[in-house]
Amino acid sequence: DLAKFDLGREVRTGIPEVVLSIGKSPEKIAKIIKACGNKGLIITRLNESKYKKIVTKLPKNCEVRYYKEGRVMIVGKHEKVVEGHVGIITGGTADIPVAEEAKIILEEMGCKVSMVYDVGIAGIHRLFRYLRKLIKKNVQLLIVVAGMEGALPSVVAGLVDLPVIAVPTSVGYGAGGKGIAALLSMLQSCVPGVVVVNIDNGFGAAAFALKILKQINSPSSP
Amino acid sequence: DLAKFDLGREVRTGIPEVVLSIGKSPEKIAKIIKACGNKGLIITRLNESKYKKIVTKLPKNCEVRYYKEGRVMIVGKHEKVVEGHVGIITGGTADIPVAEEAKIILEEMGCKVSMVYDVGIAGIHRLFRYLRKLIKKNVQLLIVVAGMEGALPSVVAGLVDLPVIAVPTSVGYGAGGKGIAALLSMLQSCVPGVVVVNIDNGFGAAAFALKILKQINSPSSP
Amino acid sequence: DLAKFDLGREVRTGIPEVVLSIGKSPEKIAKIIKACGNKGLIITRLNESKYKKIVTKLPKNCEVRYYKEGRVMIVGKHEKVVEGHVGIITGGTADIPVAEEAKIILEEMGCKVSMVYDVGIAGIHRLFRYLRKLIKKNVQLLIVVAGMEGALPSVVAGLVDLPVIAVPTSVGYGAGGKGIAALLSMLQSCVPGVVVVNIDNGFGAAAFALKILKQINSPSSP
Amino acid sequence: DLAKFDLGREVRTGIPEVVLSIGKSPEKIAKIIKACGNKGLIITRLNESKYKKIVTKLPKNCEVRYYKEGRVMIVGKHEKVVEGHVGIITGGTADIPVAEEAKIILEEMGCKVSMVYDVGIAGIHRLFRYLRKLIKKNVQLLIVVAGMEGALPSVVAGLVDLPVIAVPTSVGYGAGGKGIAALLSMLQSCVPGVVVVNIDNGFGAAAFALKILKQINSPSSP
Amino acid sequence: DLAKFDLGREVRTGIPEVVLSIGKSPEKIAKIIKACGNKGLIITRLNESKYKKIVTKLPKNCEVRYYKEGRVMIVGKHEKVVEGHVGIITGGTADIPVAEEAKIILEEMGCKVSMVYDVGIAGIHRLFRYLRKLIKKNVQLLIVVAGMEGALPSVVAGLVDLPVIAVPTSVGYGAGGKGIAALLSMLQSCVPGVVVVNIDNGFGAAAFALKILKQINSPSSP
Amino acid sequence: DLAKFDLGREVRTGIPEVVLSIGKSPEKIAKIIKACGNKGLIITRLNESKYKKIVTKLPKNCEVRYYKEGRVMIVGKHEKVVEGHVGIITGGTADIPVAEEAKIILEEMGCKVSMVYDVGIAGIHRLFRYLRKLIKKNVQLLIVVAGMEGALPSVVAGLVDLPVIAVPTSVGYGAGGKGIAALLSMLQSCVPGVVVVNIDNGFGAAAFALKILKQINSPSSP
Amino acid sequence: DLAKFDLGREVRTGIPEVVLSIGKSPEKIAKIIKACGNKGLIITRLNESKYKKIVTKLPKNCEVRYYKEGRVMIVGKHEKVVEGHVGIITGGTADIPVAEEAKIILEEMGCKVSMVYDVGIAGIHRLFRYLRKLIKKNVQLLIVVAGMEGALPSVVAGLVDLPVIAVPTSVGYGAGGKGIAALLSMLQSCVPGVVVVNIDNGFGAAAFALKILKQINSPSSP
Amino acid sequence: DLAKFDLGREVRTGIPEVVLSIGKSPEKIAKIIKACGNKGLIITRLNESKYKKIVTKLPKNCEVRYYKEGRVMIVGKHEKVVEGHVGIITGGTADIPVAEEAKIILEEMGCKVSMVYDVGIAGIHRLFRYLRKLIKKNVQLLIVVAGMEGALPSVVAGLVDLPVIAVPTSVGYGAGGKGIAALLSMLQSCVPGVVVVNIDNGFGAAAFALKILKQINSPSSP
Ligand SMILES: Nc1ncnc2c1ncn2[C@@H]1O[C@H](COP(=O)(O)O)[C@@H](O)[C@H]1O
Ligand SMILES: Nc1ncnc2c1ncn2[C@@H]1O[C@H](COP(=O)(O)O)[C@@H](O)[C@H]1O
Ligand SMILES: Nc1ncnc2c1ncn2[C@@H]1O[C@H](COP(=O)(O)O)[C@@H](O)[C@H]1O
Ligand SMILES: Nc1ncnc2c1ncn2[C@@H]1O[C@H](COP(=O)(O)O)[C@@H](O)[C@H]1O
Ligand SMILES: [Mg+2]
Ligand SMILES: [Mg+2]
Ligand SMILES: [Mg+2]
Ligand SMILES: [Mg+2]
Ligand SMILES: [Mg+2]
Ligand SMILES: [Mg+2]
Ligand SMILES: [Mg+2]
Ligand SMILES: [Mg+2]
Repeated sequence: DLAKFDLGREVRTGIPEVVLSIGKSPEKIAKIIKACGNKGLIITRLNESKYKKIVTKLPKNCEVRYYKEGRVMIVGKHEKVVEGHVGIITGGTADIPVAEEAKIILEEMGCKVSMVYDVGIAGIHRLFRYLRKLIKKNVQLLIVVAGMEGALPSVVAGLVDLPVIAVPTSVGYGAGGKGIAALLSMLQSCVPGVVVVNIDNGFGAAAFALKILKQINSPSSP
Repeated sequence: DLAKFDLGREVRTGIPEVVLSIGKSPEKIAKIIKACGNKGLIITRLNESKYKKIVTKLPKNCEVRYYKEGRVMIVGKHEKVVEGHVGIITGGTADIPVAEEAKIILEEMGCKVSMVYDVGIAGIHRLFRYLRKLIKKNVQLLIVVAGMEGALPSVVAGLVDLPVIAVPTSVGYGAGGKGIAALLSMLQSCVPGVVVVNIDNGFGAAAFALKILKQINSPSSP
Repeated sequence: DLAKFDLGREVRTGIPEVVLSIGKSPEKIAKIIKACGNKGLIITRLNESKYKKIVTKLPKNCEVRYYKEGRVMIVGKHEKVVEGHVGIITGGTADIPVAEEAKIILEEMGCKVSMVYDVGIAGIHRLFRYLRKLIKKNVQLLIVVAGMEGALPSVVAGLVDLPVIAVPTSVGYGAGGKGIAALLSMLQSCVPGVVVVNIDNGFGAAAFALKILKQINSPSSP
Repeated sequence: DLAKFDLGREVRTGIPEVVLSIGKSPEKIAKIIKACGNKGLIITRLNESKYKKIVTKLPKNCEVRYYKEGRVMIVGKHEKVVEGHVGIITGGTADIPVAEEAKIILEEMGCKVSMVYDVGIAGIHRLFRYLRKLIKKNVQLLIVVAGMEGALPSVVAGLVDLPVIAVPTSVGYGAGGKGIAALLSMLQSCVPGVVVVNIDNGFGAAAFALKILKQINSPSSP
Repeated sequence: DLAKFDLGREVRTGIPEVVLSIGKSPEKIAKIIKACGNKGLIITRLNESKYKKIVTKLPKNCEVRYYKEGRVMIVGKHEKVVEGHVGIITGGTADIPVAEEAKIILEEMGCKVSMVYDVGIAGIHRLFRYLRKLIKKNVQLLIVVAGMEGALPSVVAGLVDLPVIAVPTSVGYGAGGKGIAALLSMLQSCVPGVVVVNIDNGFGAAAFALKILKQINSPSSP
Repeated sequence: DLAKFDLGREVRTGIPEVVLSIGKSPEKIAKIIKACGNKGLIITRLNESKYKKIVTKLPKNCEVRYYKEGRVMIVGKHEKVVEGHVGIITGGTADIPVAEEAKIILEEMGCKVSMVYDVGIAGIHRLFRYLRKLIKKNVQLLIVVAGMEGALPSVVAGLVDLPVIAVPTSVGYGAGGKGIAALLSMLQSCVPGVVVVNIDNGFGAAAFALKILKQINSPSSP
Repeated sequence: DLAKFDLGREVRTGIPEVVLSIGKSPEKIAKIIKACGNKGLIITRLNESKYKKIVTKLPKNCEVRYYKEGRVMIVGKHEKVVEGHVGIITGGTADIPVAEEAKIILEEMGCKVSMVYDVGIAGIHRLFRYLRKLIKKNVQLLIVVAGMEGALPSVVAGLVDLPVIAVPTSVGYGAGGKGIAALLSMLQSCVPGVVVVNIDNGFGAAAFALKILKQINSPSSP
Repeated sequence: DLAKFDLGREVRTGIPEVVLSIGKSPEKIAKIIKACGNKGLIITRLNESKYKKIVTKLPKNCEVRYYKEGRVMIVGKHEKVVEGHVGIITGGTADIPVAEEAKIILEEMGCKVSMVYDVGIAGIHRLFRYLRKLIKKNVQLLIVVAGMEGALPSVVAGLVDLPVIAVPTSVGYGAGGKGIAALLSMLQSCVPGVVVVNIDNGFGAAAFALKILKQINSPSSP
């Protein structure tokens, strides 16, 4: 009676229903989990203290994993249904939580993930080596996460022919801070073919990646 | 000496160099075309009167096509190198120029395109029939173009499991006009996995689609 | 001497004076309540801890009801003067507090309310069934509450001929977050005849609904 | 093939399809009119020179009316289906085109309209007399149109118990100009129950008014 | 060595130096007070808990007054040098702290102040009576303080021939909240001759009033 | 029937009705002038070509003056009713039209005006000499007009004890251009007692000055 | 009497007075030139048609140079007083006018300039070669001009130890267009020590460069 | 594995890697410090309580200095490699923390610094004396730090021929608060050659100063 589950969503769109914890009390989230029964459920943007309050309200046998850095809680198990290999790159160390959010979702759905952290444009030469490694590993698309001036996705997309999903992060203060400069830079990219999700939306990038990987690894015939 | 052509760009990234005509005089564009020699060149956001001025400055044997609605000029021929099938959907009739821009680029590169225009959310029931048709045609991804409140990409992405690239258009006046409401809506989409390009950037959506199709139709092995 | 009560407001405009608690200390609110005497008074946006502080400062015989989810406190009783039946729909579960605020005000004034929660556009098919139910119940107007991309009021207004009052909520983070995308979407609606109140202003939507219902159920002769 | 007409919209929502002319060439609008056949069609935001170009492209027997001040063109005839009486008030003389747009739509649908122009808050005493007149005429709701600081709808709504639909106009220069201050003022109204449409959207106000009048003058039983 | 006192400021500009406490630690403020010696000093925007910390750090014989509602602390005594009579009006009860800030500064400098609280435009009729009283008392200028839609200064300035200084307050939530709508409304006033200070800047309004009163009550000969 | 003249405004507020020509056609303005009869009328923001069109539509005997630089047209004559002396200072030469608008209104009402142009802060030393001259002339208040960074009013107000009315102008390009930086600077002034009117609103500054001068030169007794 | 020349400015600050032509009529500019006498004068942001109008109003013997691409007009001659060598780099061809403005000012003052155009981050590898060349030429500082996402100055500053002055240009459309994304990116640069001037302000970058070069090539002893 | 150190950065760009503590937990920062080994490391924007938590996690022999006012922590020692003398000026006392951040970085690298605090434009005459002193001390460039209206850098740059780096601070409330007015003012400066870093970015100003000083005191030959 509190939340209407959209059980067919996974079938219909390839992505399971995911609960955004922001603006919901621990009580409400615990109720949603219990209402959901033994279907797997993913809860995002959940800080540790709120997570701990939720757990005390759940039945003992409720199978739960919590990822502190990525702020994700997973209830039950999802079938590993999506094949594929995604590279995730971050500009700085402060972008890691958002990158982790994407990684957890992708791995939960069955996808392989290779990470490269802290190779932002302050020293562009660091990037090349890591990019080469990712390409050798045959990643099929890249998620590039960056805050402040957000230039990394553009630089990467100008160097490789893989699809690049850009994720701005809320790193940075002053004018253009909280991810605004990063978002606008990515939208204004002079490199053709950079697509963008909202600030800090690691989950959104992962969800889109899953849709692409499904097409890549079991495509409709054109 | 005027413009440095990035001849390797197509090899490196799968997308040829494309010239944005905004802020460049007809003289400058004609010079760029001549400097480019017989490599194919694409010029976007070119209105008809500017196009006509450019043509008078080109050598007679210069092979040129101009698409008025999509505001695109193509010089020479590109190899048709990308296989695949893209569906493009618009919310209203005013969104068509942006959709056409995407279509022209995609077809120029060898891709098949199916269009559905004017099925916005003012009468959501209109949408279902056309969506079903596109899926039956086995399109591999969707570009959804919408102005004003920009809700169409979200509604579509909630119904199908194809990747959806959202393109906001500068249709709409007053608060949130010129594409701002559409862009923000798409970034805020409650449907997981909607990615966005900048307002009116049909070219950007096509460029990203090409990168995906390349992976889909000749993927790296993960 | 602290607050000037506008006792005629209910007579003049059909809506009683309502105190917005934001920016007022518990002491000040308690003083206002006592000054008001035994006239019914409504206090909005009141969180539980502030409510508890206020109560300790009131005389024992002061009749008080507090609605935690809707953050509304009601002192004394209002005459049930407005007939009518309103449907309230929310996009997600995080929109419920704003919907509750509207519901409490409407019921307090005598109006019947039917609620449908969590039928947002991520799965548009969920909506139709519930909309049909509301129409069968003969609701006379709809209040549609949505955050994030705020598309639900437009979709609903494109399907039914009832007046739709759209309420954006401060749900959503990043660009367009805190209700900005939702508000702009509603203002930019491509569906004719969607009207809007400010972000999170459930009270405002209820107040307008009361004015309409008064006209519907005891109209001036045109 | 150019525009998909939503012929059921009038049945479904009580409002006929209306074409917004902004961003559409005279050629495109003429095509839409011809495609539409002998169904009545309304075209808004149409300046005189564009109107004249369209007319030359239409068949001789095409019945057309053009309202210069309100920038509306009507093709064919609509059935007069909505009863009711609406009062329209403007703050200044520069707000009149937006008020006219609303008036034309309302009268076209069968509704009675009473206008009062130029009674803004610079001399608030002017207002009372005219407000009294409108109430004596038994108007059932008010559309209040104002630019600059946009305070008029709030002042009116604090004085009468009729529903007030506020329309901000793009009158005003500098900070808060182009209707921004007016829109925000109306959203921030300290008077309960002011609803708002977008800047200059006289059509939207009229469309909503029609939905209310339909309920008032032939209501569902609650 | 920490702060450079501008001891001549009062002589030069008629206004003594006033310290804005925002962003300064209690330690720093206490140091400033001690450095200032026995010259009177005014400290603004000082909440109670910070005030209490400061007092513990001052020498016993330091003469201090603190005004909680207006958040002003006064050290020592100022000569009462400015004659004159100012009326201060607020729209709501939440605007009172800002009005108090202005009142304290004015009275500290020797000026007479008459206050009227909570006569905002939600019930415009309440205003007339109080305005008449103020005029009978021969106030020489008005400071009008209002949040939310900020219309009160415009309405007042349209009714009287006294100079009106408008002070927007940070009252209001959602779009245009935190004083933005109020500020823009005042800047866009359709009533000629409304001047504005920044949001919540009661001190600024008082300082300007003092300069006018000095001219009024001991004018330069033109 | 077109515009409602507020004939009592001058009596009530000390300022005559002034027509803002922006957004009004020459036809409409000519009608307003004729409707107004032989009362003096002031029309602001009127460029020369529009002025010329209006004049052709007026009766021969209509007494008209036009000020090109200040973009003001005056019909008939106003009684010179306000005594006093105002100094107007501009930062640059591009600010002169706004300063002229203020000057014309002030002189039209009977007030004496002394102007100093182009003494902005790029060479602050230029300012002192001119300021001294104005003070020697016994001006009673200052209107300081500045675009770009808008610092001049603050600098002036820190040096003299006259009331300073700050007028930001729409001079400047890029971020903070069109008067935004100037307006915000004036609102943020660290000098106590700077009041502000909207960008380019020379008329507003003059109107406020008139109200002050009325008080200064024939004050109410406090 | 029209403009006050600040003749000492060059002595005082090292930069001569420069007239910004925006918002000034050809008549006004011609007057300023004539008033200035035979001192050298620089006029910026001057398009060709306005330039031609000005020239017709000048005395025959007035020595004038006009640079079309850089939109600069120079009257008379300046002494070549500043030694030094500046490198200017642009991201695209549309940034050239702004780069030219800087170049003309620098050369006019005696400085050597080396240009590299169109080496933006879409193909970052292009950059290295040109950067190496500039360093071999012993440039002493770099002015880096870029629109759209504005990442080039950051990338350059992360590679070399020369001071980098970043100039955002108004190249780009949609969200973050007109130079906003570029400006914010430069302010948010994750590379330490990037300083910024306003959008399109090539003159400002040159003026600052001159001040540095003066210190470099004839420094004060620390 | 957590953070990739850019050890060559100091060699390449003259500035060592500096860690921004915002958005990083004490645990993460302690790890970064330990990973860095005995290379000197600078950590900025670090409040005292976070600093204390970090210290408890570091090995005993880790040499650490903490500057409370400037919120900077320095680990190990840097070689004093940059000669030169910088003047730092602030407008108010609330700007001191940002000025201190710059000072600490400059001194750490070997540079001499002279400070002048609290000489803002509220009393412009205070400035001249201090400016003269700085010039006599032969400072080679100026960092000017100011919040609120941010006019001080422009005033200073109009008086001296030293390069001026402007630093806006987040001092100020209401419209244009948090440094926005200050930033925009500095970008809009009517004084040629003011360059800007982001709000509160004292570190950025110091980093740029170091690059200039390196050129000044050991220049490339042009
Ligand atoms: N939840 C709410 N949202 C918006 N406005 C409100 C709300 N509650 C009360 N108000 C209005 O806000 C005004 C508050 O004024 P006051 O209580 O006098 O400061 C009243 O006129 C109410 O009608
Ligand atoms: N003046 C107007 N203001 C706002 N919306 C309008 C106006 N005129 C038409 N519309 C709506 O705008 C949409 C235009 O869509 P289309 O004509 O398909 O591009 C239609 O759904 C209309 O309902
Ligand atoms: N409440 C206030 N609002 C706005 N400005 C203020 C306020 N109180 C003091 N000021 C001004 O802010 C400046 C603060 O400077 P300082 O104390 O030196 O940091 C002083 O010049 C005051 O005139
Ligand atoms: N230059 C101006 N700037 C700002 N407001 C103005 C100006 N000229 C006239 N006004 C005001 O704008 C209002 C215009 O209303 P109306 O002429 O009825 O559309 C009048 O109340 C004037 O007081
Ligand atoms: Mg790093
Ligand atoms: Mg349509
Ligand atoms: Mg849900
Ligand atoms: Mg009027
Ligand atoms: Mg009240
Ligand atoms: Mg000048
Ligand atoms: Mg290029
Ligand atoms: Mg100070």
